[in-house]
Amino acid sequence: MVDGNDKVMLAHGGGGQLSNDLIRKYILPNVGNDVLNQLGDSASLELESGLICFTTDSYVVKPLFFNGGDIGKLAVCGTMNDLAVAGARPVALSLALIIETGLELEILERILKSIGETARQNNISIVTGDTKTVEAGSADKIFITTAGIGVRVSGAVPGMDKIKSGDKIIVNGTLGDHGMTIISQRKGISFESKLKSDCAVLWPLIEQMLMNCGGDVRFMRDATRGGAAATLNEIACATGMNVEICEKALPINPTVRAAADMLGFDVLDIANEGKFIAVVSPGCAVECLRICKNHPLGKDAAIIGEVGEVSKRGLVELITRIGGRRVIQLPYGRELPRIC
Amino acid sequence: MVDGNDKVMLAHGGGGQLSNDLIRKYILPNVGNDVLNQLGDSASLELESGLICFTTDSYVVKPLFFNGGDIGKLAVCGTMNDLAVAGARPVALSLALIIETGLELEILERILKSIGETARQNNISIVTGDTKTVEAGSADKIFITTAGIGVRVSGAVPGMDKIKSGDKIIVNGTLGDHGMTIISQRKGISFESKLKSDCAVLWPLIEQMLMNCGGDVRFMRDATRGGAAATLNEIACATGMNVEICEKALPINPTVRAAADMLGFDVLDIANEGKFIAVVSPGCAVECLRICKNHPLGKDAAIIGEVGEVSKRGLVELITRIGGRRVIQLPYGRELPRIC
Repeated sequence: MVDGNDKVMLAHGGGGQLSNDLIRKYILPNVGNDVLNQLGDSASLELESGLICFTTDSYVVKPLFFNGGDIGKLAVCGTMNDLAVAGARPVALSLALIIETGLELEILERILKSIGETARQNNISIVTGDTKTVEAGSADKIFITTAGIGVRVSGAVPGMDKIKSGDKIIVNGTLGDHGMTIISQRKGISFESKLKSDCAVLWPLIEQMLMNCGGDVRFMRDATRGGAAATLNEIACATGMNVEICEKALPINPTVRAAADMLGFDVLDIANEGKFIAVVSPGCAVECLRICKNHPLGKDAAIIGEVGEVSKRGLVELITRIGGRRVIQLPYGRELPRIC
Repeated sequence: MVDGNDKVMLAHGGGGQLSNDLIRKYILPNVGNDVLNQLGDSASLELESGLICFTTDSYVVKPLFFNGGDIGKLAVCGTMNDLAVAGARPVALSLALIIETGLELEILERILKSIGETARQNNISIVTGDTKTVEAGSADKIFITTAGIGVRVSGAVPGMDKIKSGDKIIVNGTLGDHGMTIISQRKGISFESKLKSDCAVLWPLIEQMLMNCGGDVRFMRDATRGGAAATLNEIACATGMNVEICEKALPINPTVRAAADMLGFDVLDIANEGKFIAVVSPGCAVECLRICKNHPLGKDAAIIGEVGEVSKRGLVELITRIGGRRVIQLPYGRELPRIC
């Protein structure tokens, strides 16, 4: 308890004694380490090289806790994954909290514990941070922004410009789990208990793919907001090549499919938090798939399609179960607010 | 205008077509550059060295626009200053936006323009970013989180552990300008027009001090939330040495003093956004002061006190105009919510 109160107060963000209390009693015990504990204006780091990747994401997911994760775990996984898919080993995270006055300190602590645990399990440190408070009604409980620094793995620089016609498209497991878990929980739908977010740090699997297949891994992206459809359309749009996906090959958890059908969503549009779309050379596709299937993060992996020829305008087409073709468009955006 | 609407919609944060529109029509034209325009999951950077500083801050200032700046300018200056006071040349920023549905796109654009201008004027690039939207009532217009990377200037590693008894304390100009500007504007007080935030990037001045005085600059901190009182107390608390400040020597704008007196604030507790407290060796203090006074960012600089002996518990004491002594405590925290 801070100041005889069990809720966050506006003064906890004022930069004075109460801010200090919040940091020392709640933040450092849960996410602290030698660097963060110095409480400097910035963290001093000695990286093995100046070739780095840098990324940031804000997390506003609702509800804060869901089957398979919470906003804290998401804030660590999501930002680490943005580094990993760029071919960088994640090395440090920042953590900025915007907290609504009145948030129970017990909830804040659960979230901080989750951040600390996820970071420790994945060998990454929160090295710098900030805490702001706003009045009740000026935020929705808590928003978290993490930024991450990763060091480039030598030799592997995946990028859209590496993609060639004929390349294979791999996904490391079932699609739509995160988004359908959140939306079902929000709507209080009964199959909720069978749904579980795929929220996970992908680096251990990606590192194996890069070590074994190097430059044959042309491009990777984690299929979060906008789902696989958004990622595939970005590939088609940036390369000007058609992308062909085979419906039969898409790994989808049956409960996720049922929930999506019932609620009127296309699973391809639904956010994932532990899935990447990888474009790999045709010669390396089977090896990449083998590496995925031998790893807990990729046991349901599949080759779901391939990159086609250059066309006037790159299109994503789905070959349906009965052999028809359907264009998969970039989702409009109103599918699932506050999914991450 | 996006989608026939002049306000931000929830779907602008959905990761689909509308997110794309917002990024391409508003964000890239104002803050874009070669790296950001690639819209990768993370930005790839080649730093001159792996010895870096890393920092983050969220900005929730209210009102969004104030005399001397706005939330966008603040988000660039504040994070760059956290790198600068650690002795690091700022090289890259991330930009994460949390936007309340219904925010006028015109306001968003003004803020983005300000971010872009401040970054360009200070030779720094926004290299990676994120945009989230939340429902009306779930945030207060816009919150901005920036993270920054800086490269350590060789030879200069200022830190609390370098501080010695007898060191001089310098501030680079008048105290309390930012905080009193915000609070006066919020309260609609008439001297508002004479008050102006000191919001500025301090690196150009700090670089000169480090180049000329190197290790004689023992420690620096920008005196933001909690004001000079918080920074001085952090020094006393971390070193266990007393800190003595001379009231006569404190540079304070007369309008700021009048506003603080009228509203019942101690100027020492009030946030600054363009002021550092530097602890320098006695032998270098005059030279540091000269460098400050010759620079636009330090023309009102002053030596305001010195570090005393080790004591049972480091205390900050003010020698008043009439020769009395008053202990300056760490502010409690409820002085000025949402000041930055």
